[in-house]
Amino acid sequence: MSAVIFRGNDRVEILSSQDRGLMYGDGLFETLRASAADLPWWPLHWRRLQEGALRLGLQLPDEALIHDAAKKLLDGRPQVLKIVLTRGESGRGYQPVAGPGTCILSSHALPSAMPGRLSLHWCTTAVARQPALAGLKHLNRLENVLARRECTDAGHAEGLMSDCDGHVICATAANVFLYVNGCWLTPDLSQCGIAGIARAMLLTLLPDIRVSAVTRPQLENAEAVFLCNAVRGIMAVHQVGSVPVAGHAALDALKQRFLDVHPFFANE
Amino acid sequence: MSAVIFRGNDRVEILSSQDRGLMYGDGLFETLRASAADLPWWPLHWRRLQEGALRLGLQLPDEALIHDAAKKLLDGRPQVLKIVLTRGESGRGYQPVAGPGTCILSSHALPSAMPGRLSLHWCTTAVARQPALAGLKHLNRLENVLARRECTDAGHAEGLMSDCDGHVICATAANVFLYVNGCWLTPDLSQCGIAGIARAMLLTLLPDIRVSAVTRPQLENAEAVFLCNAVRGIMAVHQVGSVPVAGHAALDALKQRFLDVHPFFANE
Repeated sequence: MSAVIFRGNDRVEILSSQDRGLMYGDGLFETLRASAADLPWWPLHWRRLQEGALRLGLQLPDEALIHDAAKKLLDGRPQVLKIVLTRGESGRGYQPVAGPGTCILSSHALPSAMPGRLSLHWCTTAVARQPALAGLKHLNRLENVLARRECTDAGHAEGLMSDCDGHVICATAANVFLYVNGCWLTPDLSQCGIAGIARAMLLTLLPDIRVSAVTRPQLENAEAVFLCNAVRGIMAVHQVGSVPVAGHAALDALKQRFLDVHPFFANE
Repeated sequence: MSAVIFRGNDRVEILSSQDRGLMYGDGLFETLRASAADLPWWPLHWRRLQEGALRLGLQLPDEALIHDAAKKLLDGRPQVLKIVLTRGESGRGYQPVAGPGTCILSSHALPSAMPGRLSLHWCTTAVARQPALAGLKHLNRLENVLARRECTDAGHAEGLMSDCDGHVICATAANVFLYVNGCWLTPDLSQCGIAGIARAMLLTLLPDIRVSAVTRPQLENAEAVFLCNAVRGIMAVHQVGSVPVAGHAALDALKQRFLDVHPFFANE
């Protein structure tokens, strides 16, 4: 891991212990997969960061400056780039005051591959309904931490999180898609959950997909289920709780199309 | 402001940009009022930190070590002490791994007094229902930041936040109490909200208080309303939204009893 820190457009050496990102989770993040020589989805991630910054009222640094620093940091190696953007040190207490944001870039090794037969835990930790933050990849992620711990404790590599009404929303670090009666379906995220970039790319590949409430029985009876995120791409699911998922040619076909369009996911 | 940082029981100079407190809001905090020579509520705050750390699985540093460092930092001045405890740098992704926590102590000037006639905004930003985190003073506070901004934009010094069913839960940085039909009442926090230390102290002073769901009409028709927190103590409320609150001798009496027991709040 190596990292660089910006305050506004100025490179700084030290992160303040009073940064609002730490004090309140007052910020956003992006996690990008870098190919050997490129950040293929940079424009999509930066646009989401811009949209999130607009919703929360955060100040963004200059895109070209940060993109250049990211490329230098990655140094041509296939890695994961993480961008954290916070409201910086401005303001007193919860009250936000306009001021330069903090932007932290860090590079990380690509994660080890998922298990060959991915089985999902049903997490007890719910996703709280909060439309004011729905869709955002913000820094308030304690729910995900608690849910992820549940998965590991139960011997699963990932798990599904539901809202307080039992609607399935997401995995702990991925979005979820299912194939039911010949149709792709993915949860509506207008009340909670992160609207992932891989999810957005898949929505463009699947014009007939339904984005709606998803129930646990629907998932358990689905013909195919997969998870996706911007680091791992598509991850086929072989078991949901104690229920095996048969798999379907539609998933194999989708995975191939996805790799054709986005070949830098090929080694997953 | 001055600050010191510990990693486990070791004093360190720099906060890692990869600290999980920043990455995920994976931690807790306490805000204490210090008198000229003492931290009168230290045992209560430390106990809450212990209980929160147990719920989240965080490692606490040695209490005597941190108390000593806090006293040195405050240097005998009436100030606010903030303690932030995070899960540190351990683990990869959301998955928490046992390891030394980060503990940041910082001293801050006492806040300026609240307006003489405190009026409360009805915040649009709701408190999301999340029983897994209810009661904890954790670092996922984006809701409070958004709600606080609403108050300022509307010209109010504080505001009331409700859950998604419209039950009143708290102010943006305080708990709320109301006097209805000769009885004190404060919201139930089993589903969301921070169980404040000042609230806990007041519950011991008010053995007949009801802790239950509180509706907006109840607040608007209350005979007396006050906010409380561990920095400001009791703050009488004079207006809720556009509705004036008459005030009641019961509040004056309670405020006097509170000051008799906790005289270090006397200058509020």
